[in-house]
Amino acid sequence: MLDHSLLLSDQYQLSMLEAYLAEGMTETAVFEFFVRKLPPRRDFLMAAGLEQLVEFLEGMRYTPDELAWLRASGSFSARFVDSLAGLRFTGDVDAMPEGTVFFPNEPVMRITAPLPEAQLIESRLINLIHFQSLIASTAARMVLAAPGKQLVDFGFRRAHGAEAGLLAARASYLAGFDGTATVAAHREFGVPVFGTMAHSFIQAHDDEATAFERFARVRPSALTLLIDTYDTERAAGIVARLAPKLAAEHIAIAAVRLDSGDLAAHACAVRRILDEAGLQKVRIFASGGLDDRALLQLCRSAAPIDGFGVGTSLTTSSDAPALDCAYKLQEYAGRPRRKLSEGKATWPGRKQVYRFHRPDGTIAEDVVALVSEPCAGEPLLRPVMRAGRRLPDLPDLSRARSHAARSLEHLPPPLRRLEAAEVLVHISQGLRDLAASMTT
Amino acid sequence: MLDHSLLLSDQYQLSMLEAYLAEGMTETAVFEFFVRKLPPRRDFLMAAGLEQLVEFLEGMRYTPDELAWLRASGSFSARFVDSLAGLRFTGDVDAMPEGTVFFPNEPVMRITAPLPEAQLIESRLINLIHFQSLIASTAARMVLAAPGKQLVDFGFRRAHGAEAGLLAARASYLAGFDGTATVAAHREFGVPVFGTMAHSFIQAHDDEATAFERFARVRPSALTLLIDTYDTERAAGIVARLAPKLAAEHIAIAAVRLDSGDLAAHACAVRRILDEAGLQKVRIFASGGLDDRALLQLCRSAAPIDGFGVGTSLTTSSDAPALDCAYKLQEYAGRPRRKLSEGKATWPGRKQVYRFHRPDGTIAEDVVALVSEPCAGEPLLRPVMRAGRRLPDLPDLSRARSHAARSLEHLPPPLRRLEAAEVLVHISQGLRDLAASMTT
Repeated sequence: MLDHSLLLSDQYQLSMLEAYLAEGMTETAVFEFFVRKLPPRRDFLMAAGLEQLVEFLEGMRYTPDELAWLRASGSFSARFVDSLAGLRFTGDVDAMPEGTVFFPNEPVMRITAPLPEAQLIESRLINLIHFQSLIASTAARMVLAAPGKQLVDFGFRRAHGAEAGLLAARASYLAGFDGTATVAAHREFGVPVFGTMAHSFIQAHDDEATAFERFARVRPSALTLLIDTYDTERAAGIVARLAPKLAAEHIAIAAVRLDSGDLAAHACAVRRILDEAGLQKVRIFASGGLDDRALLQLCRSAAPIDGFGVGTSLTTSSDAPALDCAYKLQEYAGRPRRKLSEGKATWPGRKQVYRFHRPDGTIAEDVVALVSEPCAGEPLLRPVMRAGRRLPDLPDLSRARSHAARSLEHLPPPLRRLEAAEVLVHISQGLRDLAASMTT
Repeated sequence: MLDHSLLLSDQYQLSMLEAYLAEGMTETAVFEFFVRKLPPRRDFLMAAGLEQLVEFLEGMRYTPDELAWLRASGSFSARFVDSLAGLRFTGDVDAMPEGTVFFPNEPVMRITAPLPEAQLIESRLINLIHFQSLIASTAARMVLAAPGKQLVDFGFRRAHGAEAGLLAARASYLAGFDGTATVAAHREFGVPVFGTMAHSFIQAHDDEATAFERFARVRPSALTLLIDTYDTERAAGIVARLAPKLAAEHIAIAAVRLDSGDLAAHACAVRRILDEAGLQKVRIFASGGLDDRALLQLCRSAAPIDGFGVGTSLTTSSDAPALDCAYKLQEYAGRPRRKLSEGKATWPGRKQVYRFHRPDGTIAEDVVALVSEPCAGEPLLRPVMRAGRRLPDLPDLSRARSHAARSLEHLPPPLRRLEAAEVLVHISQGLRDLAASMTT
């Protein structure tokens, strides 16, 4: 369903490609993708999007139609456009597995390929890895904020376009959400799908009781009734009176949903109404402008809410809608390369990230080192593609989700509590020496 | 290029559809899309995305493949899935033309269609209209902040997926940007495309002078050289020495680009270096973490910068990554409907927005009224589709862009200066009376 057209890219990639090919600059380049610094009030990030990147790289080619359009556009020489026909990705990819927790200045991914290929993929690589990592990182905070609660992505409508909605459903499921409301994400990625009802359904009927009852008969499975259209507690009373009638028809009300007002207060009142009617098994599900802080507060105050639908704050990562990330040339033709732009200088050379754990398994510290330096920690960048082909046994979404859960378990306790804390990322001596040798 | 699959939707739309069809609830519904309140430090918004919505509605259908998948999913009855095969959009659309400035509580769009159709389209309608309106609104502020400057969208890589990158290029062009770096947006929408070079191009060469010279020979047209990879002023000196050599080959350097550090200070220093070398015609282009506030500051301080590339803050609308918008049922089967949820109550009935102008053309005030109420102002909602077909002569992107420019000219002067100011949106007496009659 994702469109991986190579025209989904920046114009300058093509300009540079033309220049590289004209100059015969096709030797091996090493690029790395990393995050420069954390957004405010964030202390860790989670890698995601690798599977879509691999699909993009495996299928990378200009279609005859795109080549004809490029030729007709007049922006490029005919000879150059002809040479694009045979272009494929033939390089290597090493990356942190999806669901790995990472920190600033750590390469999340290393691309080793002929310079034109490694350059051309930049725009879509960042576009794919940045967004899913952004959403997985945001979702992971919500998962930590609401332990044991059901979490469902409700954010398609305010996601930034269709692909964002689809990929946010995947990235949040990877990070520990239980599912999504987006049908296409269920089909495309197998993310479990959840659905309730909208206010318009209630409004279209002449009264709430009729709306509830009719919906229940047509859609009796996992039945969730929305009770805040007019007056939440009054609607809870309607649900209490309706339940025995439906039970006689073997229809069980699974949950009620609150979507406005003081959710904790309404949840308490509704829980009481339901319990007094013997409806202890009817769960309370809440939605409406929730973010990680609201989830933390509702869960710490022990509001009787069993699950949450999270929309805009998840799929737009509204507290931090972008990461300060980059994909930078670190080596060309066997020589390390370094950018020195103010505030944006990079660590040169091919690197690896080594993670050290405490005896209880939690992260102690990371070391960013040159691949050529010996280091005792667990190497986080693993081989993903060789010579343009994916290696066998790459984790699927289900395995990535398990890995994400383990990664969150291994966060230092303050980070698991969403408290500000820093995991030390050391820069190895070898890397410091190399950088120093290139500064002057 | 946009994927308009009907599965790009929320599961509950299908559940409600099944219930509506089972109940025979297929009478005419009226839904309206509106924004509840402005994001912080925003005082106006701009409508965009209508063209993509019309495309979606015209082509709306489940493919045989999707129907087979829905049947196999087991979530819906076979009879219901069969009935989806013939589903088309047969309704009416009235909307503010793209590029129209609007304010909270004003319906931007009114859908009048059989209830199942009007309901089903909700998720993708919001997804399309919300995002482009968000970006057009953000871009409009940048256009006002940098009058007379060239503005180019550089944000594909950090946009939330491919569709976001593509649609942000369209929406920002609509709002007054000069173009985009995204090739596919050039192909898809005819948005002018711009390209420079990346730091990696410089880094891959052994020295900057060689990189500049070789690039110039291969890509002499609209030649823009990136000068901040190592030392901005030193690179400007290299450009000054290179220019006469290239001029002898009839290659003109069009611009240099700054991407880091204190842009105003570097621009002054670089301007001096270029001017002293007789390169008054070489323009200075700046990029790197710019937003509307930075543009305003750079332009007010008269920094000698001729154009800007804007990325993340544009394509993620990072200061306000979402609008508090809704698509709500206002009438069903001839009866007005109203939602009363706390903090989310709606104005019922079919509405129109009337705009009143001052003698100089600027907006004086808007009135939101029932369509049945007479009102002297300019009606903003115009017919777009009738009985499922688009009306002839809908504005294309070029006309929408002209309309947007006029809309910005007609903003009250404080809003044009990006100062906080409120345009009065009155609720008509008829609408107040109707709402009051439905509260009890």
